[in-house]
Amino acid sequence: MSTLMFSDDDLRQIVQRVGIDVIMDELVQRLFDALAAFDPQVTEIPTRAGFHYDTPVTGLIEWMPLLEKQRSVVMKVVGYHPDSPETLQLPTILSNLSKYDPSTGRLVALMDGTFLTAMRTGAASAVASRVLADPDSSTIGLIGCGAQAVTQLHALSRCFDLNSVLIYDVDQRAMDSFTQRIRAFAPRSLPIRQESLAELVAASDILCVATSVGIGEGPVFDFTDVRPALHVNAVGSDFPGKTEVPKALLLDSFVCADTRDQAMREGECQQLSADQVAADLPEVVKQAARFERFRSHKTVFDSTGWALEDQVAMDLMLELAGDLGIGTEVHIECVSEDPRDPYEFIDAGSEQSAVDDKASVTGGV
Amino acid sequence: MSTLMFSDDDLRQIVQRVGIDVIMDELVQRLFDALAAFDPQVTEIPTRAGFHYDTPVTGLIEWMPLLEKQRSVVMKVVGYHPDSPETLQLPTILSNLSKYDPSTGRLVALMDGTFLTAMRTGAASAVASRVLADPDSSTIGLIGCGAQAVTQLHALSRCFDLNSVLIYDVDQRAMDSFTQRIRAFAPRSLPIRQESLAELVAASDILCVATSVGIGEGPVFDFTDVRPALHVNAVGSDFPGKTEVPKALLLDSFVCADTRDQAMREGECQQLSADQVAADLPEVVKQAARFERFRSHKTVFDSTGWALEDQVAMDLMLELAGDLGIGTEVHIECVSEDPRDPYEFIDAGSEQSAVDDKASVTGGV
Repeated sequence: MSTLMFSDDDLRQIVQRVGIDVIMDELVQRLFDALAAFDPQVTEIPTRAGFHYDTPVTGLIEWMPLLEKQRSVVMKVVGYHPDSPETLQLPTILSNLSKYDPSTGRLVALMDGTFLTAMRTGAASAVASRVLADPDSSTIGLIGCGAQAVTQLHALSRCFDLNSVLIYDVDQRAMDSFTQRIRAFAPRSLPIRQESLAELVAASDILCVATSVGIGEGPVFDFTDVRPALHVNAVGSDFPGKTEVPKALLLDSFVCADTRDQAMREGECQQLSADQVAADLPEVVKQAARFERFRSHKTVFDSTGWALEDQVAMDLMLELAGDLGIGTEVHIECVSEDPRDPYEFIDAGSEQSAVDDKASVTGGV
Repeated sequence: MSTLMFSDDDLRQIVQRVGIDVIMDELVQRLFDALAAFDPQVTEIPTRAGFHYDTPVTGLIEWMPLLEKQRSVVMKVVGYHPDSPETLQLPTILSNLSKYDPSTGRLVALMDGTFLTAMRTGAASAVASRVLADPDSSTIGLIGCGAQAVTQLHALSRCFDLNSVLIYDVDQRAMDSFTQRIRAFAPRSLPIRQESLAELVAASDILCVATSVGIGEGPVFDFTDVRPALHVNAVGSDFPGKTEVPKALLLDSFVCADTRDQAMREGECQQLSADQVAADLPEVVKQAARFERFRSHKTVFDSTGWALEDQVAMDLMLELAGDLGIGTEVHIECVSEDPRDPYEFIDAGSEQSAVDDKASVTGGV
């Protein structure tokens, strides 16, 4: 009874050996395919729930479970603590992903969800943008230059032929360090320009909004002059009361939510009535040809984060890890040979280590 | 950013070094104290939720989260697959426990929940029995001789001066192997007797019921002739439609649920209306002196399993592990030095192992 565990070093090795661009390309394509194939009769995704609190700091810890019937249960546990970068030099998001076998309940695999949340959030915007944004989009505007902005740009740079990136953040340091933080994928020739908010909004073909604006303090830009076919990836709103995009822009746009109910509760769609949310992401991907006509209109993708994205990301990493023989088999569950004897494992003692198969793992997940 | 991980071997070492009796005694006392101190304003325990399915096998995977405000989040993920012992030689319950820091979202610790679920379920019955059963109870009846029966008997044997154990199971093999499975704690002098169901029920001072009876197929015994001060620990009912105890006995007893809403949905209390459930376990423990008067009456503890019990069990093991220097620091979360750079950790690569501090861990949890 073993669990395949991945350390940060294991994920690092996978990324180093496969390449961050290949991983992002795979993730975007697999997410597209998973959305196109999504069947709620086969894959159950309950409403995300969690603990929200104001002490010791403002934050939340949520769980995002998914059942793919007869195949697997994936559970993401994710913390969001917006003060962490400033006060603790930690990311706002810390997370892990675990996978279970629904025929036994066994913990099959465990890995980081921090890096993968950033990757899959970028990939989700790329999928929405592939259908809804003008394919000739070449100017990206980023409002908020934190961790999410990095993967937004990465994912979009893999799907669009960019020739200009406009950035804005209320924190000058975040703007100043941005070029350094995209070195893993951005060609040096790609111009990154700090821009005033109004001019950034006016000049963008695709706008990605991912800020830590406070509850009730949005929107983070005004809807005045925007391009007629502007596509917005609205990433930061994922909490009741937190919104970033002006309601007037939403009302003037085709709005697609990743998952409608959640977006109505936590995302930009809080500002809308149900009939003003035109579609959800599986619908848009399944009928891409039909929805591509909105490429010449203003469109908004309201991204609140969805367990399907996490499942796709985890499965991709598990597959790559299997190919590369990366991962460690650990024995966590205390299982007796006689299933009716919970104490037998105590006597079964040996000197074996918790970790007995370092870097010799393939398949089986 | 590290996580304290416990292998099955780590838990085995803790149990071997501390002793299973000491652990059970501590668990019973700490659970009693935690229930006496329980304040729903401080400790939030949402309703257990999960996936229930009939393919590939009948089973469920549930998550049981708990927030102790400002201190910790504990998440238990637990699978229940009743066919596992017969078809796979695996326990019906497989589980793990994880703990998070609510100031960052960090995964603080991870350990088995299989063994600990069995232990804490026994401890919960012992706590209820300490208040509600006749302190002179000396004959225990066990209906169902599976894994739960072992820890029921263990916990009760630590709180009552037993001189007779009567056992019954529809599976003769489970009865035949029972004495062997309680060797870790039961003195050889303790008489274990296979008994007919009716005679077992009639002769027991305390009855523990923990079977894998199918949905809609209960009760598993008749309410005819029982002792006037019989106390029942009803352990097996934890699923809509699954009940073990005759309704007539419930109606004739003081009924205490571990947690009222859940017991009304999944436990024996499904058979009752809300006003027929006299109390819940925190109430009974907080006002033990008041409820002890029911020791001379028939009483039933409806145990469906509660996250508070898991938190107490996990915290006990973490404390013992800290004392003994057992556990392994692993790096799971991919955290960059610059919290705004999700890709920085990729370059931070080193040859360091996933496991860098084996058996050198103390405190900090």
